[in-house]
Amino acid sequence: MKEITALLYHDFTALDALGPLEVLGRLPGYEIRYASLSGGPVSNEKGLTVETEALGSLGRSDILLVPGGMGSRKLALDGDFLAALRRAALESTVVMTVCTGSALAAAAGLLGGLRATGNKRAFDWTMSMGEKVLWQRDARWTRDGKFYTAAGVSAGIDMALGFGPFRQRNGPFHCGGHGVLLE
Amino acid sequence: MKEITALLYHDFTALDALGPLEVLGRLPGYEIRYASLSGGPVSNEKGLTVETEALGSLGRSDILLVPGGMGSRKLALDGDFLAALRRAALESTVVMTVCTGSALAAAAGLLGGLRATGNKRAFDWTMSMGEKVLWQRDARWTRDGKFYTAAGVSAGIDMALGFGPFRQRNGPFHCGGHGVLLE
Repeated sequence: MKEITALLYHDFTALDALGPLEVLGRLPGYEIRYASLSGGPVSNEKGLTVETEALGSLGRSDILLVPGGMGSRKLALDGDFLAALRRAALESTVVMTVCTGSALAAAAGLLGGLRATGNKRAFDWTMSMGEKVLWQRDARWTRDGKFYTAAGVSAGIDMALGFGPFRQRNGPFHCGGHGVLLE
Repeated sequence: MKEITALLYHDFTALDALGPLEVLGRLPGYEIRYASLSGGPVSNEKGLTVETEALGSLGRSDILLVPGGMGSRKLALDGDFLAALRRAALESTVVMTVCTGSALAAAAGLLGGLRATGNKRAFDWTMSMGEKVLWQRDARWTRDGKFYTAAGVSAGIDMALGFGPFRQRNGPFHCGGHGVLLE
């Protein structure tokens, strides 16, 4: 079984995680794990509370997914979180970030020298988290090496539809195909 | 405070609920509650576990939202669930259903004589849940009286964007407006 790990945190944006997971979860042979730094229930500003496992208790991931959300502002200054994110990302085959999740990856020193993007409404702040990142302000999503980054909710779904193993299995996106899946 | 209640159940489709909630949760003065028939943790086939309150312990809702999902097949035959759904829906100002959530509303006898739609890949089954419903196979979403119904994930988000109080506040959907919100 291949492992997709969604790394959640207080005040994460639900769709940033669950949009791509709706696509990636259709890949046969992949299972999804919901993690946070310490494990236990994680809530967001819309009152959603999700059960999570402690990131450190899980083995390596094939895909590590980092959503955005208002909570990222605080975590981008949290050394323990950033160290754990860095370790998990380095062990993962693929890392995907959505919205201000890209700022967290940048703050963890993962994106230096790589092309990346993030939410357009928080782009200047996101850029300030990684001066060596080749930020792509106009991109909806990017891939550079093992790092995929997306601007926001719908861009994150597009990014997942563009993920290599998904495309190889299902072909490029077309209306009437995946369009019907997510109608 | 106005109350939005998302009625979850085992094997619900996360995006059917969280897509519309991402939009509706932006309405000032509305708060979101996550409910299930009995309360407690509710899981779906993608390993997501969400904390819920018992539907019967909550007061009436301004908006009752019923997502689709594989679990609806079983619940459409569950008299206790359908009775609770019917009671909550009758007390609510507005009811929104997404995907096979429309089949549950139909099975609860809520949609007789009304125009409604549901997921295109389960449409014949959905229709069989309510012979007196004016099913709209080609519609992405419908509104008839207090009942809004949507075909699926992205149609459900469009339905929420088309909800009266949201449109009155934000105007009709246009790229660069709500398009950027959900980029």
